[in-house]
Amino acid sequence: MSNKDISMAVIRRLPKYHRYLREMLETGVMRTSSKELSNILGFSSSQIRQDFNNFGEFGQQGYGYKVEDLYNEIKKIIGLTKRYNMIIIGAGNLGSALANYGFYDIGFNVKAIFDNSKEKIGKEINGIKVNDTNVLETYLINNDIDIVILSVPSKAAQNIADRLMISGIKSIWNFSSVDIVVPDDMVIENVHLIDSLMTLTYLINK
Amino acid sequence: MSNKDISMAVIRRLPKYHRYLREMLETGVMRTSSKELSNILGFSSSQIRQDFNNFGEFGQQGYGYKVEDLYNEIKKIIGLTKRYNMIIIGAGNLGSALANYGFYDIGFNVKAIFDNSKEKIGKEINGIKVNDTNVLETYLINNDIDIVILSVPSKAAQNIADRLMISGIKSIWNFSSVDIVVPDDMVIENVHLIDSLMTLTYLINK
Repeated sequence: MSNKDISMAVIRRLPKYHRYLREMLETGVMRTSSKELSNILGFSSSQIRQDFNNFGEFGQQGYGYKVEDLYNEIKKIIGLTKRYNMIIIGAGNLGSALANYGFYDIGFNVKAIFDNSKEKIGKEINGIKVNDTNVLETYLINNDIDIVILSVPSKAAQNIADRLMISGIKSIWNFSSVDIVVPDDMVIENVHLIDSLMTLTYLINK
Repeated sequence: MSNKDISMAVIRRLPKYHRYLREMLETGVMRTSSKELSNILGFSSSQIRQDFNNFGEFGQQGYGYKVEDLYNEIKKIIGLTKRYNMIIIGAGNLGSALANYGFYDIGFNVKAIFDNSKEKIGKEINGIKVNDTNVLETYLINNDIDIVILSVPSKAAQNIADRLMISGIKSIWNFSSVDIVVPDDMVIENVHLIDSLMTLTYLINK
């Protein structure tokens, strides 16, 4: 089945299903229903059934869902049945915080950090070596990297993205506060903190 | 005019308009059109006109928009015509990174940081004092705080949110990886990093 037509709204709900199902599993809940999930998650039952139907048949009408099966299915759909190798470019405050975030426990290895500051190169953050950004291309030839975390200043972001594109990187988790332009076969997920903060100020003043 | 019926999709586009209009202003662009904005931002012209129409009349049919006027209007709508006082609760890696983020330059004062670790209390991060979370309520009685940045471990998040609610705080920028439950008159903006990362893995595997 092709997942090409699944809307971003559905896709962005998947991690939330994953999170709540894991919690249910951890607290020993065996079965659940779209109605119960609706109460917990705040989406309507029909919304939840529709979301799951995008990916196949998960439950039996009237019998609800086995939590473990549903959790495993969602995990598979999100792509969490394998581990991912990541690097971080930009060892500033945010990059360093991300190096310490604990991604390993949820299936992500941070293999290396890159920065162009002479004071940072050669040091380690959370046991991960900081390399000179100059050797980025060489590193990427010799290492199999799935995801690049981009936490460089805005002005540097597009240039680094271009270099990543040329090096064959297919996905960027972008923490810089600009939108970067990449070809259609690259995936960008933006964490635009300032946009998020401005959404908050709008809602405060509403 | 009431902004109550504006959809979250529109609201989340406002910071992006703000960002691009500021850039145009900085590079000396005086006038723009929904067509030009469409090319830059990737939303359709009619989408852009519709978005702006939610907030009143900004341009003249056929004449486009004065960039400065439009930028100032968007700024006003987002609520960026005043400064906001914030505190950070949780001085871990992410909280410390946020204390260093440079919010001051865009209109936000980080007034204090709170943590319950004996090693951190009394220290300063980016010149901002780390207080004992025990004195949070006393601090909030004596200081006018608009926004609380929550960067505590998941398990502590709901309890802190309850304490903030009781102290009369109306808005939380939540970086903990759980959804917190608050009354309707409180505003929560979530930055769920793991959800964002899982959206990326979904898109990689699509």
